[in-house]
Amino acid sequence: MPTNGNRRQIGVGLIGLGVVGSGVARALIERRDYFARQVGAELVVRRAAVRNLQKPRAVELPPGTITDDVDAVLADPAIDIIVEVIGGEEPAGTYIRRALEAGKHVVTANKELMAKVGPELLADAHRRGLDIMFEASVGGGIPLIAPLRRDLLANKISSIRAIINGTTNYILTSMANHAAVAEALHRQGLEPPPGGYEEALRAAQELGYAEPDPTNDVEGYDAAYKLAIMATLGFRTRVHPSQVHTEGITRLSAKDFEAARELGYAIKLLAIAERTPEGIIARVAPAFIPLSEPLARVDGVYNAVQIHGDLTGTVLFQGRGAGSEPTSSAVVADLLDLAHAIVLGTRERKYWGPEGDVPVLGLEHLETRYYLRVKVTDRPGVLAQIARTLGDHEVSIAAVNQKETDTHAQTADLVIMTHRAREGAVQAALREMATLPVVVQVSAFLRVEG
Amino acid sequence: MPTNGNRRQIGVGLIGLGVVGSGVARALIERRDYFARQVGAELVVRRAAVRNLQKPRAVELPPGTITDDVDAVLADPAIDIIVEVIGGEEPAGTYIRRALEAGKHVVTANKELMAKVGPELLADAHRRGLDIMFEASVGGGIPLIAPLRRDLLANKISSIRAIINGTTNYILTSMANHAAVAEALHRQGLEPPPGGYEEALRAAQELGYAEPDPTNDVEGYDAAYKLAIMATLGFRTRVHPSQVHTEGITRLSAKDFEAARELGYAIKLLAIAERTPEGIIARVAPAFIPLSEPLARVDGVYNAVQIHGDLTGTVLFQGRGAGSEPTSSAVVADLLDLAHAIVLGTRERKYWGPEGDVPVLGLEHLETRYYLRVKVTDRPGVLAQIARTLGDHEVSIAAVNQKETDTHAQTADLVIMTHRAREGAVQAALREMATLPVVVQVSAFLRVEG
Repeated sequence: MPTNGNRRQIGVGLIGLGVVGSGVARALIERRDYFARQVGAELVVRRAAVRNLQKPRAVELPPGTITDDVDAVLADPAIDIIVEVIGGEEPAGTYIRRALEAGKHVVTANKELMAKVGPELLADAHRRGLDIMFEASVGGGIPLIAPLRRDLLANKISSIRAIINGTTNYILTSMANHAAVAEALHRQGLEPPPGGYEEALRAAQELGYAEPDPTNDVEGYDAAYKLAIMATLGFRTRVHPSQVHTEGITRLSAKDFEAARELGYAIKLLAIAERTPEGIIARVAPAFIPLSEPLARVDGVYNAVQIHGDLTGTVLFQGRGAGSEPTSSAVVADLLDLAHAIVLGTRERKYWGPEGDVPVLGLEHLETRYYLRVKVTDRPGVLAQIARTLGDHEVSIAAVNQKETDTHAQTADLVIMTHRAREGAVQAALREMATLPVVVQVSAFLRVEG
Repeated sequence: MPTNGNRRQIGVGLIGLGVVGSGVARALIERRDYFARQVGAELVVRRAAVRNLQKPRAVELPPGTITDDVDAVLADPAIDIIVEVIGGEEPAGTYIRRALEAGKHVVTANKELMAKVGPELLADAHRRGLDIMFEASVGGGIPLIAPLRRDLLANKISSIRAIINGTTNYILTSMANHAAVAEALHRQGLEPPPGGYEEALRAAQELGYAEPDPTNDVEGYDAAYKLAIMATLGFRTRVHPSQVHTEGITRLSAKDFEAARELGYAIKLLAIAERTPEGIIARVAPAFIPLSEPLARVDGVYNAVQIHGDLTGTVLFQGRGAGSEPTSSAVVADLLDLAHAIVLGTRERKYWGPEGDVPVLGLEHLETRYYLRVKVTDRPGVLAQIARTLGDHEVSIAAVNQKETDTHAQTADLVIMTHRAREGAVQAALREMATLPVVVQVSAFLRVEG
């Protein structure tokens, strides 16, 4: 059991003092004694670099702590650990490299940076006998990096399936709720209000769940960064975000959510990385998932990650994936872990190393089921042509349903569920379908996952 | 990133070579090179102590490895880490103490021992600069000990709510499924087959999910050990299993599951430890839980643990909580963690220390809602007497329902849901109720959790 004897101090330097940075500083100040007892050293915030000195801060720091000179933080010999919480690839990457050159450990919440150059940074740190901790880069306060690096290390991990972006999950959840209401109104012969993507996004922005420029979230980039980090750790081979097939949620329509409801599915932005005999397939895309699946019931701003190991089977981690407090909880946990390692004289820590280069395959190798919504001219024989086109590419239809007819425009919406098929074949069939005179447009194409 | 240079060997001694022990040995042999690359040392099983040398083993070990002489394992200077997987308080406790005296680290899956004397063993190990790892003692392959000791360390943990015994969850799940079938049969005027506890237990035993003597599981002792371990770590104060109010599932009847269904609840054996301003309340008991709660949907042999931290909010961990492979995954993870610490020259590791003695309160301090099933003589005015008895103790009724009348015996079953009340008051009311001439018996009493 820890004694309270050793009260050596460990200096912390913050780069960034926004919501996460202030949350970290507040926790270190308010829980200073408790943490000191737990790790055998006091964690003291020596300096905090900010861009704008005038901006009011959510935490009270001793005078002289806050500076707009990053060099002053990186060069401070009294600082052992640099906490980078400004996000983005640059200048964060430069700051972290300089922190390592200065012999300082690093704790970062930077998913973009760790996804793009994490392995190089980890190698650099390791050469210098230093450590980079990044639990906060994925899933906020949910332990995910530590389980992948250590707790599940005995396992051969075969898949990672995740809902890992709170903004999009909030938007998709409200679109699904709207579909439920719409269904009820339809039954009463009433016309529901528009429940499309635009309406849901605006509501999320008003509530602060989506940023004014939501691109990074709604186009799936944020989720792709997080998946790349988890896949790289879990499969012990480099998976770069550019190798993650990424689709956003911006083209989803209320019609798709109504169809999903009828068929017994939820629509979620799923981040999935699978290890196949030929290689790894990684994707972020909105997908149908059976309502019976745990991930189908992860709503609102919650995150959830399913990791399948050959020994543990499937382990599910779920919680709040973002926000000042959950994220600072992860940053502080890393700080305490590092501080403890320093106190105990650990030279280095080197979990995770690649096990050779496993190829990352294109999505054409994926085999699953598919949901299609196709707008066609409403006339006899159309379905036959659609079916033939799919059949020609060995894509067989599991169910088809003529959704609604626009008597004025003389068009109809066909909702098609396929049996398992190769993505490559389905894509080819879709390209050919689009050229059919009877096809107005292929309105939706979603994978059925699980 | 790990280099493959350092191939120092770390000796492992197994005490016990049953399903878990063989699983551990198999993993260490089959994944030897991989593990060596990950932690910088080869983990080699030097000796394995068994009770019966004749018994066939599920793993092939080099000749001379297996012995029936525990001393030979404990005394072997080539062994750095002892893995204890025989379970039970003794002789396991003695073996572990002797391993520490011999200067060896310990990895154990022993929940009873860690729950009863874990803090003392950890203190002893710490004094000697050694470590005891026990991830496998709770939740099989689900990371729980590590998150409580490290990943959630920044948090003040206010509650731990868990389904942590697979055997009872399997039995309760089949009783619930039977209730669903029974309901359907009733609607068709058919008499369902008996779906009581005894039938469900027998089925579980036939499938190997319950032991021939199921006492430890069905009486809640196993869950109480695991809860005591988690509460001790999470609240950072000693919670002894004897301080966990423990009720088994043996008195549950099919009638309770039918009532639960009608009212929109599941019945689960919940292990709950909460931190209140006055102190800690810890309990293991079958309880009503709303179907909307994630724990209500954890079925079969799965385990799930919800930990609420003030920064992270509620984090859910779910997976297979038992079995050879999940448990050996946890043991091996601890082995790799220890091996790595040895390679890196860590002197000791000392996460978790108590933060003073928080009182553990009796259940009379609990305040929640309650479900009662009371068999009464079927005559006017009875409900008034029952209601008055509850009212006299300031327990108010939220809903009451006369379930079924036995015209022959002239008795009726009353199902009562109370509003929030103090457990002490409810218990007093029940004692008084039992003395009423109109009350045949109080057939069921369950807490409504969440």
